[in-house]
Amino acid sequence: MIVVMKRDSDRAEIDSVIKHIEELGLGAHLIEGEERTVIGVVGRTYPELGSALEVLPGVDAIVPISKPYKLAGREVIPDDTIITVKGVEIGGGRPVVMAGPCSVESEEQLLETARAVRAAGANILRGGAYKPRTSPYQFRGLGEEGLKLLKAASEETGMPIITEVLTPADIDVVCQYADILQIGARNMQNYILLEECGRTNKPVMVKRGLSGQIQEWLLAAEYVMSQGNRRVMLCERGIRTFETATRNTMDVSAIPLLKRLSHLPVIGDPSHGTGHWYLVEPLAAASIAAGADGLIIEVHPNPDHALSDGAQSLTFESFRRMMDKVRAVGDAVGRPLHPAGEAEPLAV
Amino acid sequence: MIVVMKRDSDRAEIDSVIKHIEELGLGAHLIEGEERTVIGVVGRTYPELGSALEVLPGVDAIVPISKPYKLAGREVIPDDTIITVKGVEIGGGRPVVMAGPCSVESEEQLLETARAVRAAGANILRGGAYKPRTSPYQFRGLGEEGLKLLKAASEETGMPIITEVLTPADIDVVCQYADILQIGARNMQNYILLEECGRTNKPVMVKRGLSGQIQEWLLAAEYVMSQGNRRVMLCERGIRTFETATRNTMDVSAIPLLKRLSHLPVIGDPSHGTGHWYLVEPLAAASIAAGADGLIIEVHPNPDHALSDGAQSLTFESFRRMMDKVRAVGDAVGRPLHPAGEAEPLAV
Amino acid sequence: MIVVMKRDSDRAEIDSVIKHIEELGLGAHLIEGEERTVIGVVGRTYPELGSALEVLPGVDAIVPISKPYKLAGREVIPDDTIITVKGVEIGGGRPVVMAGPCSVESEEQLLETARAVRAAGANILRGGAYKPRTSPYQFRGLGEEGLKLLKAASEETGMPIITEVLTPADIDVVCQYADILQIGARNMQNYILLEECGRTNKPVMVKRGLSGQIQEWLLAAEYVMSQGNRRVMLCERGIRTFETATRNTMDVSAIPLLKRLSHLPVIGDPSHGTGHWYLVEPLAAASIAAGADGLIIEVHPNPDHALSDGAQSLTFESFRRMMDKVRAVGDAVGRPLHPAGEAEPLAV
Amino acid sequence: MIVVMKRDSDRAEIDSVIKHIEELGLGAHLIEGEERTVIGVVGRTYPELGSALEVLPGVDAIVPISKPYKLAGREVIPDDTIITVKGVEIGGGRPVVMAGPCSVESEEQLLETARAVRAAGANILRGGAYKPRTSPYQFRGLGEEGLKLLKAASEETGMPIITEVLTPADIDVVCQYADILQIGARNMQNYILLEECGRTNKPVMVKRGLSGQIQEWLLAAEYVMSQGNRRVMLCERGIRTFETATRNTMDVSAIPLLKRLSHLPVIGDPSHGTGHWYLVEPLAAASIAAGADGLIIEVHPNPDHALSDGAQSLTFESFRRMMDKVRAVGDAVGRPLHPAGEAEPLAV
Repeated sequence: MIVVMKRDSDRAEIDSVIKHIEELGLGAHLIEGEERTVIGVVGRTYPELGSALEVLPGVDAIVPISKPYKLAGREVIPDDTIITVKGVEIGGGRPVVMAGPCSVESEEQLLETARAVRAAGANILRGGAYKPRTSPYQFRGLGEEGLKLLKAASEETGMPIITEVLTPADIDVVCQYADILQIGARNMQNYILLEECGRTNKPVMVKRGLSGQIQEWLLAAEYVMSQGNRRVMLCERGIRTFETATRNTMDVSAIPLLKRLSHLPVIGDPSHGTGHWYLVEPLAAASIAAGADGLIIEVHPNPDHALSDGAQSLTFESFRRMMDKVRAVGDAVGRPLHPAGEAEPLAV
Repeated sequence: MIVVMKRDSDRAEIDSVIKHIEELGLGAHLIEGEERTVIGVVGRTYPELGSALEVLPGVDAIVPISKPYKLAGREVIPDDTIITVKGVEIGGGRPVVMAGPCSVESEEQLLETARAVRAAGANILRGGAYKPRTSPYQFRGLGEEGLKLLKAASEETGMPIITEVLTPADIDVVCQYADILQIGARNMQNYILLEECGRTNKPVMVKRGLSGQIQEWLLAAEYVMSQGNRRVMLCERGIRTFETATRNTMDVSAIPLLKRLSHLPVIGDPSHGTGHWYLVEPLAAASIAAGADGLIIEVHPNPDHALSDGAQSLTFESFRRMMDKVRAVGDAVGRPLHPAGEAEPLAV
Repeated sequence: MIVVMKRDSDRAEIDSVIKHIEELGLGAHLIEGEERTVIGVVGRTYPELGSALEVLPGVDAIVPISKPYKLAGREVIPDDTIITVKGVEIGGGRPVVMAGPCSVESEEQLLETARAVRAAGANILRGGAYKPRTSPYQFRGLGEEGLKLLKAASEETGMPIITEVLTPADIDVVCQYADILQIGARNMQNYILLEECGRTNKPVMVKRGLSGQIQEWLLAAEYVMSQGNRRVMLCERGIRTFETATRNTMDVSAIPLLKRLSHLPVIGDPSHGTGHWYLVEPLAAASIAAGADGLIIEVHPNPDHALSDGAQSLTFESFRRMMDKVRAVGDAVGRPLHPAGEAEPLAV
Repeated sequence: MIVVMKRDSDRAEIDSVIKHIEELGLGAHLIEGEERTVIGVVGRTYPELGSALEVLPGVDAIVPISKPYKLAGREVIPDDTIITVKGVEIGGGRPVVMAGPCSVESEEQLLETARAVRAAGANILRGGAYKPRTSPYQFRGLGEEGLKLLKAASEETGMPIITEVLTPADIDVVCQYADILQIGARNMQNYILLEECGRTNKPVMVKRGLSGQIQEWLLAAEYVMSQGNRRVMLCERGIRTFETATRNTMDVSAIPLLKRLSHLPVIGDPSHGTGHWYLVEPLAAASIAAGADGLIIEVHPNPDHALSDGAQSLTFESFRRMMDKVRAVGDAVGRPLHPAGEAEPLAV
């Protein structure tokens, strides 16, 4: 942590800051620049210290230096984390594809979709049973009934399941059916939920919040990991910006940046990232080209009758086309897609 | 809901959209413009319908018309909601002041602060017992012990208590001590938490999320209200923008805009809104000038030793100065501050 | 400037950075923290240096310390700048009001408006003759004809004129008529235009760009000042955020923050800041409460027939009401409005 | 344009809006919904009309329907625009690569770079002679001397030149040397500059402004095109968001979205888009995967000694690696890179 003094701060003010630092058992290291003095704080600093030092007379600003995340960072754990779920390896160099409907609506809708995405090469089945909705008057999901349908579709197709958990009270029931827990964007800073997921033995995918900075997002992963669960992956699904032509602005650069800062797998979600089905294929290809460890894609038999997110859902046909392109791009960048076969015939 | 067709959409595409609408029991109303055709959808529309219609051939865009919030809107409930808490009226034309430390740290810190803000004219005591923190390694609050200290300080000073509830499991214990439940910014779209608070008999203050649009924020209030609890107030606490010179960007215009769109009381939080103690007084004054029904302010005996949010906390002295200015501005705009006296000697 | 090394940077990398710094004639000051090493660079640093150092092996990040603006900053020039224009003092503690139509449309429209705002207490006449428009097919202003009408209205009412200059080639003609040059938001980083205005003897009002950070905005002022023209004022007119319920998000906190960082006068523009006439009065009052040195307000005899910005223009009646409120707030915060009278009967 | 009435608007208000519309020679088309009435305006509407109608009593909101750009839109001109510059085809299905230093610093630096990027497969030489800089104290480019160096390097390597023009007064001199005019991000809404470039016979590349919405950006292109110059291309170079871990947020989704909305070529700029050299290769690959018609890349012989943008410049070696990856991705998505050879040995 660096304390930047005001240009006209006097000796007494500087001494007082140093004294404050030393009383906390930390070291104070003075640098007198041409224009102003800065004081390096050496030792175990913490964010609150900066906030407290900022109010001392003569202080202009505080600059944090340490990275607040540890377990999620590559500086502490240099090797890539690989998460294996029923034979599917996430983060091992071969991108995986998670696909399925936004919401589980019926047995027929789910099974039909699961078979179609499986046939096209998907590795993992997605589907929402508990849906967070902006309005209390929207369709909220089938609940445990939806989980059961997911389980049945998983058993038939051999794909493990990823599904969202909305609140701590649902974790137990979701864990009975799901193979991967998904933390939705709105819950990226729901710390209680993160910690509770950190106490399960299920892999957790943490979606980026609409206004989640990279560092906060890694700290969200840290919340899960700090409870002992190291099997965490991150999912870029678009951030909120001034642009209204797309539902969100998908921050493709977050993918390679996270791969540099962290050892955790990174998944791209072009369905939510763009909000328009016709942008899903190009952004899926872009995500793989940028180094994503996987994709999560919304697919629906009839997007024009979907109970949620129809506008961003692919049809079976457009999903197959997307897979062809994504497969070609993966091969081109030396990251061939994870084989669909490896996840197959599971003894459940 | 308006369906905007592409400029080159043909008759068959238009007919197909109309058929789709009519099959749902809704009316389709055609307008053929100079440049393109639009179709008005008449009847009980819902957001999913727009998402589904958007994928039909020939459709360019969907424009929603209805406001998705009802109970929170002034179009449905035209008269101002007034929330009375132990004699303090919120939303009745006389702005209230909520003040206290960011976190409850100790009995002495809390009591000293409570007495000081009370003496300066505050009406309601704030203080965090359960703290949402960006990092798992930060101070997380005293929990129920903190609630007990709040209760004691409330009894001595006669001020009702507002405190944050983080997760559904804490609601019961928080309700035993608190007079107003606060939903923090990170939980604005934690729908389960909102609904659970909607089932209590405590007033609820919903803070705006970092990326919360006005409409989403009113829908968050709607979540609480839809469960039967109509005593909801809104709190503007700054949004996340590209500007880094302040912690957040306080959207002062949200205050009069909400007063126009909604009947709910609106509180300004210049402490979080700006993140710097020296900006709290001017933004508190600005909030009152813009029509706020109240303020919530962080105050600490020694900001340079605070366990959280020191940089944005006022000292007792600067809080008194702020109160003087805010009182003058309230008088100037015909909205004198709520008297401190009215909340006093409570039979608890 | 602080060079933050990676946690695992080795001695050779650290030495290489130090060597690089010293070869430039700068001092390198090492601080070895618990977690990582940082190197303070002492001497006349510059932004390009940071960008260049960032690519050296072992470097994690660069943290600038110096403020890049000098003449615009209060650290260099501590006393408030007061700009006097034909008897009107801007920045002298008494807020001024600039008012008039968005665009000059006709002699009648302008004169009528000028008289009305004068009677209500405005000090300076605003009006656009050269209009920047998002689309090439919109009304672009009357050009020099508009300037002549402004001049005539100014002579009749005694109010000096502020008007926008769009491009260097127009500066000469605008200077023949205008008393204050306005740099519009879209031109905040049009450096050639800023410098050319810096070579005139007219005061310059620099509006904040839609995505202008406080520091960049002060650097825009620095561009003008670096050419010798010290009579610069800043105008907050809203920034672009994710919120679409208002045209822009008016950053009221920028007003007191600029007063702290800079000695230049700060004007609030609630018309553009909000985009809705019904939000102008509350945000005008908020701006004054927050310490603005003045306001700039769009007024039109018939907003429903305005050729530009009708939705955010006040009628004469609503402008009078706004003035009453703003006057009361100015009195309340010890900053009474600048008298209208002092600017009167000018010998031109 | 749709006029949305308030829920409680009465018949007289509705009639008054209709009368206002009809007096302008436009048609008013009433739709009475379950909740509120909307009025479709049929005929040649314009943005000012919406702003004016918004202030009428009983009006809740205005929804524009027409796209304000015409020449830039695919609805008016369905076929892809192909711009041929000295044998290099931009927009013809084979992505081009523009590369070179941020600023022209010296003959040696430029020539060396030009040869290196040419050898690696670049088609067009970039280099700044007039540099827009945030601070007046930064390096501002060599001016016409820089243009002469560009010309010499172009003649030796056979690559046409793209370079930025900052202000109308420079257009003539820049046109003497450059093959493509670049409008920088800060000038996206410098309408005078856009129009002046529209009167030249040089292709123009319009970079997206930091806060430029897709629609505004297409309108910037429209400004150029409205003057008769149809050879316009667009360049995505990152937008400003809340994320500070990257210099900007590169909106990769803008690439396919523009290809859908417009017939103009779209170039990706991962150097400015990310601000970090180590993110350039993945985002270059992502841009091509998403359908970009080309890339513009900053390359420098010694980024650690660059006079500008060192942190985001590739070395010759990293540029070659990037080209290999980009070539592979182009092949994979059926859009092989434009051959370098075709631009060669020019009779100038």
